[in-house]
Amino acid sequence: MAIDFTLTAAQRKLQRNAREFAVEILQPLVRQADEHPDPQKAFEAMKGAYIECYKLGFAMGFLPRKYGGGGVSNIDLQVVSEEITAVDPGFATILLVNGLALMPLVWFGPEDQKRRWIGEATSDPRGEYLAGWTVSEAAGTPGGTANFDHPGGFPAGIGLVAKHDKGRGEYVVNGAKYWPCNAGGWDLRGANVNVCVVRTDPRKGGKSGLSAIIVPRGARGVTYNAPISKIGHRLCQNNSIVFENCRVPEENAFAVGNGDLVVSKAFTWSGPVAAIAAVGVARAAYEYILKWAKTYTAGGEKPIIHHQAVGYLLAEVAMKIEACRAFAWKAAHYLDLHDSEGHAVGAMAKVLCGEILFDAVFRAMQAMGVNALDKTHPVEKFLREALVFPLYDAGNVGMQMRKIWGVMLAPDFDPRAIANCEPIRFQKSMEGVGTLAPHDAQSASSGATHVSKGRKSTGISPAPQARLARSHASRKAGTIS
Amino acid sequence: MAIDFTLTAAQRKLQRNAREFAVEILQPLVRQADEHPDPQKAFEAMKGAYIECYKLGFAMGFLPRKYGGGGVSNIDLQVVSEEITAVDPGFATILLVNGLALMPLVWFGPEDQKRRWIGEATSDPRGEYLAGWTVSEAAGTPGGTANFDHPGGFPAGIGLVAKHDKGRGEYVVNGAKYWPCNAGGWDLRGANVNVCVVRTDPRKGGKSGLSAIIVPRGARGVTYNAPISKIGHRLCQNNSIVFENCRVPEENAFAVGNGDLVVSKAFTWSGPVAAIAAVGVARAAYEYILKWAKTYTAGGEKPIIHHQAVGYLLAEVAMKIEACRAFAWKAAHYLDLHDSEGHAVGAMAKVLCGEILFDAVFRAMQAMGVNALDKTHPVEKFLREALVFPLYDAGNVGMQMRKIWGVMLAPDFDPRAIANCEPIRFQKSMEGVGTLAPHDAQSASSGATHVSKGRKSTGISPAPQARLARSHASRKAGTIS
Amino acid sequence: MAIDFTLTAAQRKLQRNAREFAVEILQPLVRQADEHPDPQKAFEAMKGAYIECYKLGFAMGFLPRKYGGGGVSNIDLQVVSEEITAVDPGFATILLVNGLALMPLVWFGPEDQKRRWIGEATSDPRGEYLAGWTVSEAAGTPGGTANFDHPGGFPAGIGLVAKHDKGRGEYVVNGAKYWPCNAGGWDLRGANVNVCVVRTDPRKGGKSGLSAIIVPRGARGVTYNAPISKIGHRLCQNNSIVFENCRVPEENAFAVGNGDLVVSKAFTWSGPVAAIAAVGVARAAYEYILKWAKTYTAGGEKPIIHHQAVGYLLAEVAMKIEACRAFAWKAAHYLDLHDSEGHAVGAMAKVLCGEILFDAVFRAMQAMGVNALDKTHPVEKFLREALVFPLYDAGNVGMQMRKIWGVMLAPDFDPRAIANCEPIRFQKSMEGVGTLAPHDAQSASSGATHVSKGRKSTGISPAPQARLARSHASRKAGTIS
Amino acid sequence: MAIDFTLTAAQRKLQRNAREFAVEILQPLVRQADEHPDPQKAFEAMKGAYIECYKLGFAMGFLPRKYGGGGVSNIDLQVVSEEITAVDPGFATILLVNGLALMPLVWFGPEDQKRRWIGEATSDPRGEYLAGWTVSEAAGTPGGTANFDHPGGFPAGIGLVAKHDKGRGEYVVNGAKYWPCNAGGWDLRGANVNVCVVRTDPRKGGKSGLSAIIVPRGARGVTYNAPISKIGHRLCQNNSIVFENCRVPEENAFAVGNGDLVVSKAFTWSGPVAAIAAVGVARAAYEYILKWAKTYTAGGEKPIIHHQAVGYLLAEVAMKIEACRAFAWKAAHYLDLHDSEGHAVGAMAKVLCGEILFDAVFRAMQAMGVNALDKTHPVEKFLREALVFPLYDAGNVGMQMRKIWGVMLAPDFDPRAIANCEPIRFQKSMEGVGTLAPHDAQSASSGATHVSKGRKSTGISPAPQARLARSHASRKAGTIS
Repeated sequence: MAIDFTLTAAQRKLQRNAREFAVEILQPLVRQADEHPDPQKAFEAMKGAYIECYKLGFAMGFLPRKYGGGGVSNIDLQVVSEEITAVDPGFATILLVNGLALMPLVWFGPEDQKRRWIGEATSDPRGEYLAGWTVSEAAGTPGGTANFDHPGGFPAGIGLVAKHDKGRGEYVVNGAKYWPCNAGGWDLRGANVNVCVVRTDPRKGGKSGLSAIIVPRGARGVTYNAPISKIGHRLCQNNSIVFENCRVPEENAFAVGNGDLVVSKAFTWSGPVAAIAAVGVARAAYEYILKWAKTYTAGGEKPIIHHQAVGYLLAEVAMKIEACRAFAWKAAHYLDLHDSEGHAVGAMAKVLCGEILFDAVFRAMQAMGVNALDKTHPVEKFLREALVFPLYDAGNVGMQMRKIWGVMLAPDFDPRAIANCEPIRFQKSMEGVGTLAPHDAQSASSGATHVSKGRKSTGISPAPQARLARSHASRKAGTIS
Repeated sequence: MAIDFTLTAAQRKLQRNAREFAVEILQPLVRQADEHPDPQKAFEAMKGAYIECYKLGFAMGFLPRKYGGGGVSNIDLQVVSEEITAVDPGFATILLVNGLALMPLVWFGPEDQKRRWIGEATSDPRGEYLAGWTVSEAAGTPGGTANFDHPGGFPAGIGLVAKHDKGRGEYVVNGAKYWPCNAGGWDLRGANVNVCVVRTDPRKGGKSGLSAIIVPRGARGVTYNAPISKIGHRLCQNNSIVFENCRVPEENAFAVGNGDLVVSKAFTWSGPVAAIAAVGVARAAYEYILKWAKTYTAGGEKPIIHHQAVGYLLAEVAMKIEACRAFAWKAAHYLDLHDSEGHAVGAMAKVLCGEILFDAVFRAMQAMGVNALDKTHPVEKFLREALVFPLYDAGNVGMQMRKIWGVMLAPDFDPRAIANCEPIRFQKSMEGVGTLAPHDAQSASSGATHVSKGRKSTGISPAPQARLARSHASRKAGTIS
Repeated sequence: MAIDFTLTAAQRKLQRNAREFAVEILQPLVRQADEHPDPQKAFEAMKGAYIECYKLGFAMGFLPRKYGGGGVSNIDLQVVSEEITAVDPGFATILLVNGLALMPLVWFGPEDQKRRWIGEATSDPRGEYLAGWTVSEAAGTPGGTANFDHPGGFPAGIGLVAKHDKGRGEYVVNGAKYWPCNAGGWDLRGANVNVCVVRTDPRKGGKSGLSAIIVPRGARGVTYNAPISKIGHRLCQNNSIVFENCRVPEENAFAVGNGDLVVSKAFTWSGPVAAIAAVGVARAAYEYILKWAKTYTAGGEKPIIHHQAVGYLLAEVAMKIEACRAFAWKAAHYLDLHDSEGHAVGAMAKVLCGEILFDAVFRAMQAMGVNALDKTHPVEKFLREALVFPLYDAGNVGMQMRKIWGVMLAPDFDPRAIANCEPIRFQKSMEGVGTLAPHDAQSASSGATHVSKGRKSTGISPAPQARLARSHASRKAGTIS
Repeated sequence: MAIDFTLTAAQRKLQRNAREFAVEILQPLVRQADEHPDPQKAFEAMKGAYIECYKLGFAMGFLPRKYGGGGVSNIDLQVVSEEITAVDPGFATILLVNGLALMPLVWFGPEDQKRRWIGEATSDPRGEYLAGWTVSEAAGTPGGTANFDHPGGFPAGIGLVAKHDKGRGEYVVNGAKYWPCNAGGWDLRGANVNVCVVRTDPRKGGKSGLSAIIVPRGARGVTYNAPISKIGHRLCQNNSIVFENCRVPEENAFAVGNGDLVVSKAFTWSGPVAAIAAVGVARAAYEYILKWAKTYTAGGEKPIIHHQAVGYLLAEVAMKIEACRAFAWKAAHYLDLHDSEGHAVGAMAKVLCGEILFDAVFRAMQAMGVNALDKTHPVEKFLREALVFPLYDAGNVGMQMRKIWGVMLAPDFDPRAIANCEPIRFQKSMEGVGTLAPHDAQSASSGATHVSKGRKSTGISPAPQARLARSHASRKAGTIS
């Protein structure tokens, strides 16, 4: 063990394979799919490439070898992810989401469930297997997800209720989700499994009474509406789902009462992956524009990189990419050391790299000038993709920053622990910081409370899913959005 | 005269009219047009709203009363522009471009031409009149526009050549343009007039030997290809045009030998308009997200604005909008005082407001979180629109910043002149700073020169227009892109 | 009334006078005073220049004519302040603080007090009159000032208690202050008056039970310790004061129960002044470095401004200065329209200009390079001065941003009111947002509460004043810091 | 070899030793020395601590074992430097400068010189040995250093001339230096050796005709004036030196004709050290303010870190520190792999970490508020120290960014080489980019040329050294500053 930034021979091979796949198989599909106005069609167009990935081990590689996975480390995942995201981060998200859904089972599930579900995920002979990560809910009042760990009572926070019918040994799931990824599956009839964060105890609010539950494809009472059309990451599928008396065997539940920890850890694990994805996109933008700047003259005598302003802009972009890669690796390495218990550093990498590199892509575009707006070139897409990182995967402002803050607030927090690779145990007490308790007597809140009651008076038309969910489920108080 | 930030009664009326037009007539058309994959269709969908604008005096209002225009000041224009750009800045650009095309005639043209062309522009009974601003050219080696004022020889810089055929009293125009706005007209058969910057003396390069020439609709030898599909400002038309032996009467030329000054002044005049357009877009994003933040809870007990991080983000966005509006007004006021000779402050407003507010829109989106990516909401469009400001209208890095630098470099530059509302005379000697002379002996340039020769070896697929122009005109060395 | 950025003839005269004073009288004193290790000596060295200012009307000009003041507007004050702060913002702060102290009396005081105290302030034949603004307290647990408007009980928040001895018609003041400005007077025996924010009702905490009280020079029981030595603004005096049974006539109190509003409004009034002070300092840095860049070659053939990176850096600095001046003026104009009730825009100007221009000074230094570190040049001082703006005068993070947030939170907040010059009434309900109630059940707080009890276990050595105050007053629970 | 961020046992020991030294021996000396108005006195106060360092192997540890050094790697140096700079980066600079001076000998010197001089440096029984790095010159016209690699003729660029007197086998050195570090030695009579970059061929200008020469303590004709008083890094000595017919044996020269490469490589080697120094300072600021924020309430009920704005600010600061450490390590690792030939990545780390962390220290101060200005606390010093990094050691704008740009401009530059740990050979052709040739016909330059002639008309008083040097050497045209 010693500070080192060189890939092992195995990692170089992984990198080569990922790059070949990305450039040769994925790249030719991207533009047309991205431009498709129907996001479901864009997603479906990825199926062939996904199957290739599955075969190459990229779709389930992060799962433990013991259950048929590839056992690749978080660092290995960095190497693979950079190559794929440099071509299309939306596609890469499909792969990542398998992990968001199934790694919680690895960390929190009982042995037999791991064996069953992960075994199934890693042994699909057709290579089409998809796992959906089903947490977020539509905005509303109450509604939305970022403050799910608030200290107050239900309703508020996660509103998908799984009621335990002990008599039949089942959970009965009612409510709706918005934003889940992969969840609709290739045909919009469901991923092979959906790992859903649900409220198993509706007497409790906020971070209490939450659990994870596996809803397999084919479960009755689940409706997958048209996927969300997004500005970026158009090649992955984000869903709007309604559950109506969907019954699931009780043994499909895990992390009962600890669904909050599932959410916190899953979005920690994905932090460094989001960070390196930002690196991948920025690298692609930088390389394209560097070539442009070394080629075109913009009406002068020499390629524009000979202008100091352009040269410095690109140098700045380059150094931000290098720094962010180093930091994403650092975070992944920390997660490797501590069984993905790196809630602060994982979030830090996600936040910092996503924000710095969104700006870097914008600045690289400035070096290119007005042509950067032209859809003939891929750079406007790079910006749309880079925009996603600070906003998705537990948005920076609402969730990831609060998680770091929560860790730092602990009385025994050691500000050198991350540098020293020492463990920081994440605890429930670190959740919920900065959320607002219902009894807060903040002076300006009376009006706002008034607003929050008048759901219909907002003047902002709610998302279509919210409307839809309401029509499906409006008589079940508190079960929606 | 005294420092004041209040609108006159007349300006409040202008503001009201503009707002009513924008909200009642323009707004209902925007979303569908923006989503249309064919930019020409998007542009055509604006025709009715444009005619309304024409009638309201917004399409030609900035032209002098003497020739039938509205004689509105730059400050008045700020008031109108903010209201329209808050709804759609692409549409507003159609109006602005009339000014970019025709104001040069006001400043540089002979009396009879003003009377004729501006008279025509301001008296269209159908209200469809469009003027195209035709300067930029496709990237290439040589090619592109940002460094058109380089000190070297031709080819390089503006490559659209207008050869004077004295015998027939005509100019013969050959070459191509890329990015001109409004130029194709409603039917892609030409704007009513196109004001083109051309090289009338191809023995001279760079900023020498340039002139402006009016090419009226119907002139032979002009081909308008499919408009450019852009990430933002999709409702205005950006053209790819090829000229082949297009003959224009010699009296249509003006600013002969001073085409460089035309470019510098036109993009100075539009600077404060671009600045207030950035304000308009950011204001729309801010107001939408402020309402969101005061309404939705994101899973907590209270609307998210009760969280300090959200409140501070929105406060920061708000103050940037207020500051940028004040600065855009300052620049417009300076232009009003000095017959639009405000090359430094005009550019400053364009650069600063565009860059600060692009970031502000992004940060406002962060307050909203992942829902900001959902095309159900208009905010992703606000970002796409805001992205345009730092890149269009003489890109910040390549042209606008160089213009400020050029002014500052003058030995007698007074750094307090702008604050004191004192005139700064723009001179040809202020152009061309930072451009690279052909004899620069920079050590690393040999390889780059090699690259610039190998146009085909770049690996970047050139813009379609460049390909097309090449097929049309490939035998005329140096006349294209 | 119309949008305008030109000075009136009277303002040009004010500007000329202020500039002459600053360059001819103040400038020669600055360097030596700034370098003096003893801040009291530095302050004393300003006395002569202060007297000149008093005679010129700059020391009390903002006070109403009715009581002998100059009746200058907030806009006028902008003009004067920029000229003086460009030479030394610490000196300018001495003048400003007269206003922070006495303007509350103008807004909140009874007629006879205004007549008496303001009359006295404006009629000092020796021109030495100083008014101290005495609000802030030393950090501690409890202690400090930024969250004085928290909703909890006392102790916490402002701890200087003024007990009403109705029998003797007096208030008895006990406790300590840290940071008050001008308060110690030229001889450290007291300013002519100190306007102190005190807790007149110690049964109430936070923003309740606060009042203002005038403590005249010579009042017994007040000890002025050595002034605070600061990194910047060294020429003004910041005090550490202990009150022990200091008795003041009851008619010296005003705004009884509304001391919170006094604090909020005073720091609103000073917001645009702080903003233009940041402009003054940045302008001075910019002009110095612009001249440097046009003179020195850094080893090359031409002055360094001929390098694009340097030219662009300075252009960026210049545009930030212009934009911030426009915004500071906008805020001052709004305050002029609405009797200084501009709590949002005043704070916005203070926050934005201070932060943008601190960065601008740093970036200007980068254009100059390593020589910017050399104390031979004034630029390192410019940075030290610019650093003060985001931190003093109700720090941005703790107070000014919260004030904006509080205004924005109101249900009827109109986001266009500032642009439209429409009034926004500040109300007590807008205070206290984001402060933390004692009953907040935030999960990670247990440890922190523990810390807050263990005042001695912090490991950070408290400010000397805190130590001192403790020794003076440690037996009076709740009376200190 | 594999990506890793853990220290070896040996590195942990180094870290422990460095930390102990820094906290126990250095820390108690810092405050008083920093406050001393005479920089020479401040430097002298470090002598005892320096001797301790020498004994611990920190003063010469980076020199090869073969010649008596410690043979520590660049990565090891990171570990040590962070601990010392966290206490005082000025002191750490004394150590670093030994390397800047002597590592060039390791890279470019002949075997016998290495043996002699490095042997001497590593075997001082008193542990006082200092090596001075003597490159920079005073600003002037011509004068200064940043563009020393310009393509023009002499004078301009480095003006210290070493004329070869072949007859006597000596170089005769005339001229002056400004900014050299350590050069004056403990007693201002000279460091043990000064490694000077000199012009050995004054017929050549710019980067041509430069060499390195060792001037030992005691050489005649060298005058050390009072050291430069700086805003930060006050504990190291920056010198103003005049050479008058100083004679040095010819065998003391090395890298003859390649002095340019010496400069480029030395400031590449120091890049990652400057980067980790920025980490050290920022870490110290962060830890101090984190403790503050967890302790003090600022008048509220809970320590201020419970406010979201404060928590997020500190989280942002923390993540920037973590990211910059990872990047500094990456750069150091790259240098270890390639014999310090990492001109791009070394400069990138220096530029990015210095700029990000200067801002981070400022933002941490904002969390603390006004108390951050009080010299009672060390945080104002942290800012003064952090300010130095973007400006010293080959300033970012003038030298380090140009170096990166020069590398990127090469036709065969591989943008993935740094990530892949592949070598990038630095070549003379990469120098001099963006410098301005004398024949540049830039239009606005006439006036500027005029300015550059009128050295006396600038209105900026030149640095005292320049004045002094002039009086010493004014008859030798072109040899000074």
